[in-house]
Amino acid sequence: MKCGIISVGTELLMGQITDTNAVYASEHLRSLGIDVIYRYTVGDNTERLKKTIKNAFTECDILISIGGLGPTEDDLTKETFCEVMGVPLYRDEKTMMELEDNARQHQKVLTDNNYKQALLPEGAVIFYNGAGTAPGFAVEKDDKIFICMPGPPREFISMWENGVEDYLKKLGNGEIYFRVIRLFGKGESVIETDLIDLIDNQTDPTIATYAKEGECTIRVASKHTDPEEARRKVDDMTEIICQREKDYVYTIDDEPLVMIVGRKLLEKHLSISCCESCTGGMFASLLTSVPGISEVFDRGLVTYTYNAKMNELGVKEETLSKYTAVSRQVADEMVTGLHKKTGSDVCVSVTGLAGPGGGTKRKPVGLVYIGCIVRGRKKIVKLNISDLGRAWIRKYATLAMYNIINRMIDGEKIPPM
Amino acid sequence: MKCGIISVGTELLMGQITDTNAVYASEHLRSLGIDVIYRYTVGDNTERLKKTIKNAFTECDILISIGGLGPTEDDLTKETFCEVMGVPLYRDEKTMMELEDNARQHQKVLTDNNYKQALLPEGAVIFYNGAGTAPGFAVEKDDKIFICMPGPPREFISMWENGVEDYLKKLGNGEIYFRVIRLFGKGESVIETDLIDLIDNQTDPTIATYAKEGECTIRVASKHTDPEEARRKVDDMTEIICQREKDYVYTIDDEPLVMIVGRKLLEKHLSISCCESCTGGMFASLLTSVPGISEVFDRGLVTYTYNAKMNELGVKEETLSKYTAVSRQVADEMVTGLHKKTGSDVCVSVTGLAGPGGGTKRKPVGLVYIGCIVRGRKKIVKLNISDLGRAWIRKYATLAMYNIINRMIDGEKIPPM
Repeated sequence: MKCGIISVGTELLMGQITDTNAVYASEHLRSLGIDVIYRYTVGDNTERLKKTIKNAFTECDILISIGGLGPTEDDLTKETFCEVMGVPLYRDEKTMMELEDNARQHQKVLTDNNYKQALLPEGAVIFYNGAGTAPGFAVEKDDKIFICMPGPPREFISMWENGVEDYLKKLGNGEIYFRVIRLFGKGESVIETDLIDLIDNQTDPTIATYAKEGECTIRVASKHTDPEEARRKVDDMTEIICQREKDYVYTIDDEPLVMIVGRKLLEKHLSISCCESCTGGMFASLLTSVPGISEVFDRGLVTYTYNAKMNELGVKEETLSKYTAVSRQVADEMVTGLHKKTGSDVCVSVTGLAGPGGGTKRKPVGLVYIGCIVRGRKKIVKLNISDLGRAWIRKYATLAMYNIINRMIDGEKIPPM
Repeated sequence: MKCGIISVGTELLMGQITDTNAVYASEHLRSLGIDVIYRYTVGDNTERLKKTIKNAFTECDILISIGGLGPTEDDLTKETFCEVMGVPLYRDEKTMMELEDNARQHQKVLTDNNYKQALLPEGAVIFYNGAGTAPGFAVEKDDKIFICMPGPPREFISMWENGVEDYLKKLGNGEIYFRVIRLFGKGESVIETDLIDLIDNQTDPTIATYAKEGECTIRVASKHTDPEEARRKVDDMTEIICQREKDYVYTIDDEPLVMIVGRKLLEKHLSISCCESCTGGMFASLLTSVPGISEVFDRGLVTYTYNAKMNELGVKEETLSKYTAVSRQVADEMVTGLHKKTGSDVCVSVTGLAGPGGGTKRKPVGLVYIGCIVRGRKKIVKLNISDLGRAWIRKYATLAMYNIINRMIDGEKIPPM
């Protein structure tokens, strides 16, 4: 079953708002086993909407429109769909009564425009609006289905949850099952090369790789009338991939690395402190995005100057002058000093060159050292991060810190990253 | 000039990521006077992309594609556009060399997939990628223009700012001149009410307000064949708006608050240190995104526990137990302790309740105290931030810290925020 989504509204085309409804619909349709093959955004323009509906129906079985159901003149989605599909409108008494009740309650007078909302397509399944006034609906005609929903996100989600989702569930054939494997420390193109035989030869389950800011994800998906069969195929393939990439995979449940580390720290009651140079507080900032982390997070130090490194962490002046701030020795003294100061179960340090500029042949931009102590066990890790800009180096170094902590908590070895 | 945007990527259709690039492009195209009339989202599917390009070009003069320029097999945007438009590809030596340099630097081996990125359309204007490896380009053929850009937001924005925008500017008829006024501390709807007479009665220049994560921006734009005329109109209106909102405006040059503060610190050689509780390192992390800031940034402390606040900053135990951590007194002792420890010219502290949970009637979620010392002058500011979630409260508190520092450096009073 192929589906298209049409978002209607000039404000979308002007970039004034982000289309979160279409993302919500895409995600939920996928889990119902309905493939979204196109998304369209059109302004409040009858001719362009007509053209889009006609184009979309050449390939799609279902079209879902979002927006343009309100009372004003530029709300024209319903009328346009009905015109294209040849479906007449009738006046829905229940909607009429609700509009009048609502107006009475808020001491407002209904305008002609308001009455427009009570006109609905003949033969439609109506989805009354639990969070606003405009009803939505589904119409089945000539082997095609069109569903019109309101644009305000609160109304859209309420209607999806209380009507549209159940309606759609009855349409899908077979449930889709998928897993998202996340990896850190290997680029997308290398992973794809590793898995090329699987990707090229496999049609069920399907395998797709994506790159996301230094991380890579692999999506394994299957669709069957028998959900057990889909699950088995996906889980088998997931195991094969995890086996090949075992040094890099950190989850098969699509959970961000920081959340995994945060959860483990809280579960195991491990206190944590950090000291950062090149990442400048990014590690601490990300860690404190985890709700409840105050139970285990003691403190973070951003030691930018030599002075701060010496005063706060007891890094020795001669170490700094002999090896410079970006060195294995300084990362080591930083994490050792932090551990001495805080006694936290997990201590992590980072020092590196984020650029722009300042790099040399021996110490290029992107060179980063991470020190980590987990329950007395210490590791110093060297990274050569590709110089894709200051922000990227900082982000990558931060993720690498989480990756190292995650592996050390589990007692796993640290692969090259 | 009519424009369409095609976002390419199955992950978009599956709702795995939100298409922020298309929103960015829509907003910026509008400010260049180019109308976006359609947006499309297509998966990694050659036939559907072909169909979409053909359909779009029946009405659009320009098409901008986003995504699908990477090295992997499902990256097919370039090839598909060139096939539809009949433009041959050639191997670009500069891109080849950059790919090889990059690989050598990072001791990696280039795969065949990597080489695919060096193939570019003949006669294209090339936009080299300052933040990644895949170049973008613009091709003009048969009165149509197609522009292909990479999907990762960092690469997309960098390429837009460093090439595509200038290219597009030359296409519009008549130059558009605009200013972006940025404000902090007042909501978009209040500002819109303040300016409603200007917004309603003015067609040239146009005035539009946008809300962005706690900040508000006002865009004043005019388009004329005589650029001087446009400039004069925009500057006059900008002055009127700044006069009305003078306690809240911090720039008329669309510069982020952190960059303004960073620039002032560097220019005036003011050293800075910070200590954070609820923002958890966000202030330091944002500050260290400013290149060169290491010249003035001494250190940052994330003092999450009572212990850390006492040990690192000398906050008194009785102050914590009498007033709790979220209090004017603790914000004061934090910043005073930090100043004593570091002697930095600018010291800032923050303590607050970011939630979720933990709020009481007297101390609700969103209550935040900020302490700030600038060259010996101290201010403690109380904020009641709307509880729109933990992330929002942290972000807003961070921006408020920058706003306070910015105003104190200039010797201006602190308005309620």
